[in-house]
Parts: sequence; structure tokens; C-alpha cells
Amino acid sequence: MYEGAVQELIDELGRLPGVGPKSAQRLAFHILEADPQDMKRLVEAITTVKDKVKFCTVCGNVTEQELCNICRDPRRDPSIICVVEESKDVLAVERTRSFRGRYHVLGGAINPIAGVGPEQLRIRELLTRLNDGAVQEVIIATDPNLEGEATATYLARMLKSIGIAVTRLASGLPVGGDLEYADEVTLGRAFEGRRNALT
Amino acid sequence: MYEGAVQELIDELGRLPGVGPKSAQRLAFHILEADPQDMKRLVEAITTVKDKVKFCTVCGNVTEQELCNICRDPRRDPSIICVVEESKDVLAVERTRSFRGRYHVLGGAINPIAGVGPEQLRIRELLTRLNDGAVQEVIIATDPNLEGEATATYLARMLKSIGIAVTRLASGLPVGGDLEYADEVTLGRAFEGRRNALT
Repeated sequence: MYEGAVQELIDELGRLPGVGPKSAQRLAFHILEADPQDMKRLVEAITTVKDKVKFCTVCGNVTEQELCNICRDPRRDPSIICVVEESKDVLAVERTRSFRGRYHVLGGAINPIAGVGPEQLRIRELLTRLNDGAVQEVIIATDPNLEGEATATYLARMLKSIGIAVTRLASGLPVGGDLEYADEVTLGRAFEGRRNALT
Repeated sequence: MYEGAVQELIDELGRLPGVGPKSAQRLAFHILEADPQDMKRLVEAITTVKDKVKFCTVCGNVTEQELCNICRDPRRDPSIICVVEESKDVLAVERTRSFRGRYHVLGGAINPIAGVGPEQLRIRELLTRLNDGAVQEVIIATDPNLEGEATATYLARMLKSIGIAVTRLASGLPVGGDLEYADEVTLGRAFEGRRNALT
């Protein structure tokens, strides 16, 4: 064990996700030897995020204000909501530049093993948004894995029962990929979802 | 890109060694969602290390005082110095409980590609420690890789020329390892360093 402060830093770093004991030690020694100005900036960045950044009261996306920059933007179509698991998924969809509606961030996916049920997600908030009748379509864009699919199915059934049009992102071959390397589930979905070759 | 503070945190985290853009994003969101008390502790741990921890003026090991706890310990034999690359190597040797001498931390290894020559390491400080004639033996415990071996050879020649007994850690098969999986260099070293089977 190291002397007090170094060991404490290693312990704190080791609590971060994906940082094992060896990485924590390496990071601690980096911090120890780094330029004090650089480390001051890191500390300030952490403190600022904790002090200033919160979650948009409407969609749950990260923001430094009451509403996130997408919910504040009057040019974004309020009649379509894209439901995603995390704020980082908002960014991924934004990068495509093909969606001009609003978002709803669930804050995760249904995962009974990790103790995450529908009530732990921001589903109640989504229903509140749908109350005023302005929303025409909800696009479910959860991750294409077990938890994401379970969440999508749950949401689709619930939203259908209250009469909202619900769509899901297409499954299929990734663009630029190689057919022979596609897994069988993806390839199967690509067949199911085949479309007219002339459109 | 995220709004200001989140993106700044991602950028700062991405400057840490071994933290790629994806990990930086994951860490930033973890920090964002984590218990404020936990993050306060992390920030304090970083700040304390930068404020309090320095390098022992004698051996170069990390310490919160002028001298590290090993250099301060009168029970440690001052006639044997074990030379290592980094403070973490001190800890590794200490864990063996088989060395009761003192240490000297070089602060790295000779690596011409990275621009690290002998003058960037704490070799001058080592020579100063050897001046008073109290040191009988220097054990070189640099890493068994290219840079460590180059550093060991450089030090061994220099120390021999000033008449100090210099030894190096044995190379050979790792205990608990499997002979068939040993690389040929290690196995070759194990042959060269073979010893009487009855001692």
C-alpha cells in the first residue's frame, strides 16, 4: 500500500466504471506527475459538471439549463419523439442529421437482472408528454440488444394501447459491412425487412 | 458535441493515459450521474495528491514528507540500494518482503525513441548517494524489457567503473508457470542461470 494520499486516489479512481486496480494505479501516478495546471482543469471540469449539468425536465437529456438545447429549439418538430436509452444516444442520432423531431431519454433499459424495471425509467414522463395530443409518432430507438428489445416491446405495447403511432428503427445489414460476416440474427432481420429494390 | 461542461469533461478525461474517446464519454456520464459526495471525494483525492504528495529528496519515491517512509526508517539497511524505474516498482519489491535495504527510483528507463536519455533519469542523484562510501551493493531491478535492460547495462557499467558491487535480478522461469509456455528468451535465460539442484 502507498502512503495515505496516493492510496486514497488509487481507491477513488478504482471505483470508476471500467477502471481496474492496475489502471487506477497508472492513472494515479499520471495525475501525480502531470502538470498541476492540467490537473486543475480536470478537477474544475468534474466540479462544473456536478454543479451545473442537470437533466432536461422535459426529455431527460443532459443540459446546463432547465430545458436542453433540443427542447429549447423551436425549429424541432414537436409531433415526433425519438425514445432513446441514454443522452449519448441523442448525440448518435443527431450525428445522422436525419431526424428533426424531439427526444425522450429513458435513462436506461429494462434489465430485471440489474433490478431495472419500467418504473426506474422515465416512462411516466413520456406518458405525460403524450397527454396533450401534439405528438403524432413515437420512434423507439433503444439499443438492438436483449434489454433494448425488451424495453422497445414494452413501450410499443403500452403506446399502442393509448393510440399513438409507434415505429422502431430498422434492423438489417450495417452499411459498409460484409454479408458473410453478418451474424445470423442480423441477416435474418435483413431478410424479414427486405424492401422493393427499385425504390 | 455535447453542451459546454459535459464536452469539456469528456475532453479532459480523454487526455488521461489509456482513456480513449468512448471511455472518456462513459466516465463523463458516470461522473454526471454519480452521487455528488463520491465525486467530491474523487476531486479531493486528486487535489490532495497534487498539493501534498511529492518525491523523496533522497530516493525519488513518492511521499508526503521530505523523505519517504523507507528512507526515514532507521531499520532499513543503508548499505544496499535497489534501483527501480518507478515508485510502483518499490511497492512490488516491498510485497516480496525479501529486501530490507533502501531504494532509488530512476523515474523511467532509457528510451531513445521517447527521448529519454540517462540525463532525464535520476542517475546523478544516485551517484551522489554513492559518494559517502556507505553503500556496498547496488541491485538493479529495472523492468526485464528492452528499455529496462538498456538502463541496467548503462548503470552496471557506470557503477562498476567507480568500484561499486552491482547485481541484477535473476531472469528465469516464473514460479507457478508452465515450461512449455515460457518464451524462448526466458527459457534461455533460465538455462544460463541454472544452479546446483541441491542448494
